[in-house]
Amino acid sequence: MVIKPYGFAIWEKMQAEIDRMFKATGHSNAYFPLFIPKSYLSKEASHVQGFAKECAVVTHYRLVDDPNGGGVVVDPNAKLEEELIVRPTSETVIWSTYKKWIQSYRDLPILLNQWANVVRWEMRTRIFLRTAEFLWQEGHTAHATEEEAVAETVQMMNVYADFAENYMAVPVIKGTKSESERFAGAVDTYCIEALMQDGKALQAGTSHFLGQNFAKAFDVKYLSKENKEELVWGTSWGVSTRLMGALIMAHSDDNGLVLPPKLAPIQVVIVPIYKGDEQFAAVTAEANKIKAALEAVGVSVKYDNRDTYKPGFKFADWELKGVPVRLALGARDLENGTVEMARRDVEDRKAAKKVVPLTDVVAEVQATLEDMQNSIYQKALSFRQEKTTKVDTYEEFKQVLDEKGGFVLAHWDGTTETEEKIKEETKATIRCIPLDAEAEAGKCIYSGEASTQRVLFARAY
Amino acid sequence: MVIKPYGFAIWEKMQAEIDRMFKATGHSNAYFPLFIPKSYLSKEASHVQGFAKECAVVTHYRLVDDPNGGGVVVDPNAKLEEELIVRPTSETVIWSTYKKWIQSYRDLPILLNQWANVVRWEMRTRIFLRTAEFLWQEGHTAHATEEEAVAETVQMMNVYADFAENYMAVPVIKGTKSESERFAGAVDTYCIEALMQDGKALQAGTSHFLGQNFAKAFDVKYLSKENKEELVWGTSWGVSTRLMGALIMAHSDDNGLVLPPKLAPIQVVIVPIYKGDEQFAAVTAEANKIKAALEAVGVSVKYDNRDTYKPGFKFADWELKGVPVRLALGARDLENGTVEMARRDVEDRKAAKKVVPLTDVVAEVQATLEDMQNSIYQKALSFRQEKTTKVDTYEEFKQVLDEKGGFVLAHWDGTTETEEKIKEETKATIRCIPLDAEAEAGKCIYSGEASTQRVLFARAY
Repeated sequence: MVIKPYGFAIWEKMQAEIDRMFKATGHSNAYFPLFIPKSYLSKEASHVQGFAKECAVVTHYRLVDDPNGGGVVVDPNAKLEEELIVRPTSETVIWSTYKKWIQSYRDLPILLNQWANVVRWEMRTRIFLRTAEFLWQEGHTAHATEEEAVAETVQMMNVYADFAENYMAVPVIKGTKSESERFAGAVDTYCIEALMQDGKALQAGTSHFLGQNFAKAFDVKYLSKENKEELVWGTSWGVSTRLMGALIMAHSDDNGLVLPPKLAPIQVVIVPIYKGDEQFAAVTAEANKIKAALEAVGVSVKYDNRDTYKPGFKFADWELKGVPVRLALGARDLENGTVEMARRDVEDRKAAKKVVPLTDVVAEVQATLEDMQNSIYQKALSFRQEKTTKVDTYEEFKQVLDEKGGFVLAHWDGTTETEEKIKEETKATIRCIPLDAEAEAGKCIYSGEASTQRVLFARAY
Repeated sequence: MVIKPYGFAIWEKMQAEIDRMFKATGHSNAYFPLFIPKSYLSKEASHVQGFAKECAVVTHYRLVDDPNGGGVVVDPNAKLEEELIVRPTSETVIWSTYKKWIQSYRDLPILLNQWANVVRWEMRTRIFLRTAEFLWQEGHTAHATEEEAVAETVQMMNVYADFAENYMAVPVIKGTKSESERFAGAVDTYCIEALMQDGKALQAGTSHFLGQNFAKAFDVKYLSKENKEELVWGTSWGVSTRLMGALIMAHSDDNGLVLPPKLAPIQVVIVPIYKGDEQFAAVTAEANKIKAALEAVGVSVKYDNRDTYKPGFKFADWELKGVPVRLALGARDLENGTVEMARRDVEDRKAAKKVVPLTDVVAEVQATLEDMQNSIYQKALSFRQEKTTKVDTYEEFKQVLDEKGGFVLAHWDGTTETEEKIKEETKATIRCIPLDAEAEAGKCIYSGEASTQRVLFARAY
């Protein structure tokens, strides 16, 4: 996976906001090693089962010239005594470090995050959704009490939901995972689930309550105020470059990306329309004024003065890149004291346009950006509502999945067996057990056993 | 290497400034893969010789349960057809990508940077200076002409020097490397060299003019305006967490870190002096006012209200962490309308202190921070001037190295042979051929051959 500069600029905007949210909730960043000794992975039994199957293993530390000519080969004399695993996630290396940092209740809580690359071997990759290496953040916290650790887990799920809804403009369902979808080594996994435009679900972020599992595995204890030795409680939580996939698939249309203004690297592009140098100079002078005025109120602006391309090409190019607002400025506009504004989120090209007096351009752009942020969210929310179906029979369940797609709310008997049968037969999985679901007596669509609330099914990425 | 939160906060401040400087000079960030196929490394002949010797090699992609019980073992059936190298630097993977991106002169220049972790296997590690994995940024640019690529190389060396001197408060010597110290694959390596307080030199950043070496190795050509196929010119440049080592070793004293205000995560700490809850409440109210007033002008402030530690402990703790300004606020100060200010960079504890009227505290703190930034730089500069010696004989050379240390300016005949003999006999290396050196006829201190300028020798980290 190569992330090109424009894509990376979106990721940087995401990172900046998420990092700000983490710091506002008391977290600091730190950095832990890329390589994890193989024996660490084995210490937490379910963790190793979940991650050891798909990891990159470093076995040697040197190459030498190929004695048979040509390139270089692995030096057989440089074999590591213990293999190193390229981190698929960092619980083991971090808890082995926390053991050294934690002695007493005074050392708690530890509220850390790291921005890092991780590797999970994948046979079938899909850009931004499933790549062997991806970029993410992973929070790892340690607490004196269970209550505090659970509260942290829920808080971080809420931070993710806030980011998804208010920055990415992607509505999400908060919930907990069923046992089979839980993080390997967690007691409980909270998640946010989003719906893409093709009707498939995407897990957008997870927050794990680890109980004392990693504290047990790495023998991390603290002396309480009452002078008693206690095991530490843990959480971990992460979002990744997968959010880029979510952003793209939630909002794009046939003309390209549609970016919510809060995450757009370029919020406004100004395209000059001119004939000859004189008109170009006049238009450029006005464009630079508009640019400066917008930048003064914190709007990011690109003036596309390339002379190698025509306006039509530029329009399509910036549409493809999802720039929220386009201003087209020509000689006639200068005469009239106006500029043509087009917003990216309205598909009808005519309806998307509006002629704006130059005197109002800053206010109009600001209002449009704000409106667009809300409007993109509302559109995605309406779509999700439309594509969320309650069903009460397995027949109906399968029919909805095949014909309509989206989220399906159905009763489930709570067993892994039923969950797996449903997955096998329909490719739908339990995305989450929604936190805000009403208690409702019903019967499992598959087994007919009693159930007390509906859970959220979907076919997923 | 684990980077703890306080250390990482310094690195984040460094990153933010450096990143801003890169963007101000027209660069964007991107991301390229961690793993490099082994065959890529071999494509540039001198590059592979420089890096293949010390790299982590991924040979397998799966672990399985150990059939003999216990943990997990490498799955012999999951051997990669071609080994993957954990990037020691990314020229090869980036130029293999640039080949796909570059067709015509319109695609040039490409001005990219990435923030990443890299791995160079090290037997003897030293925290922040020599670790197997480290964090860095690596810029990789592609240009149509040699002039442009050379100008870029020099520009980035100047950006590094600007950052080192004006943010880190570390004076540096700019120069080029001798052939033997040049980056493997470069035509020319520019560098900035700093002097540590123990008299040893530290290379703080390098900027490489790659000529057309990587373009040749990866067959990267462009169609010029004149419709001719031409090889692309390249540069690469990087600084790393090594800068943390430079910062620490350049300024610290026996009481701990001394941080230049521009890079201090906490610029001002307020320590309350009180007896009983009432005094604590009154002091806290005033401390919070001071904190708010300082934060309003962009100064970062920590109010250390921990009740588990006494003021003396806190003073020592923040001194150790290098916080530039300490304000001690007690009940008597409230009566007098004053606060006691202490600056970290003055070693005499008495001289470091000053009683300041509460009404002046913001102005006094701002002036002190500014003065401290300059003063730390001046101190390091004086030290370097004192520790830079011109010598004309080999005897004198060895004597200065052993008795005084520091930089030694001496004539050299320009041969690798002489350079290596000197290194073997004295452990001193040529740090750089300074850019601002005067032309001066002389004789090589080792061979007696003619020389036209002095070069900079030192024992180095």
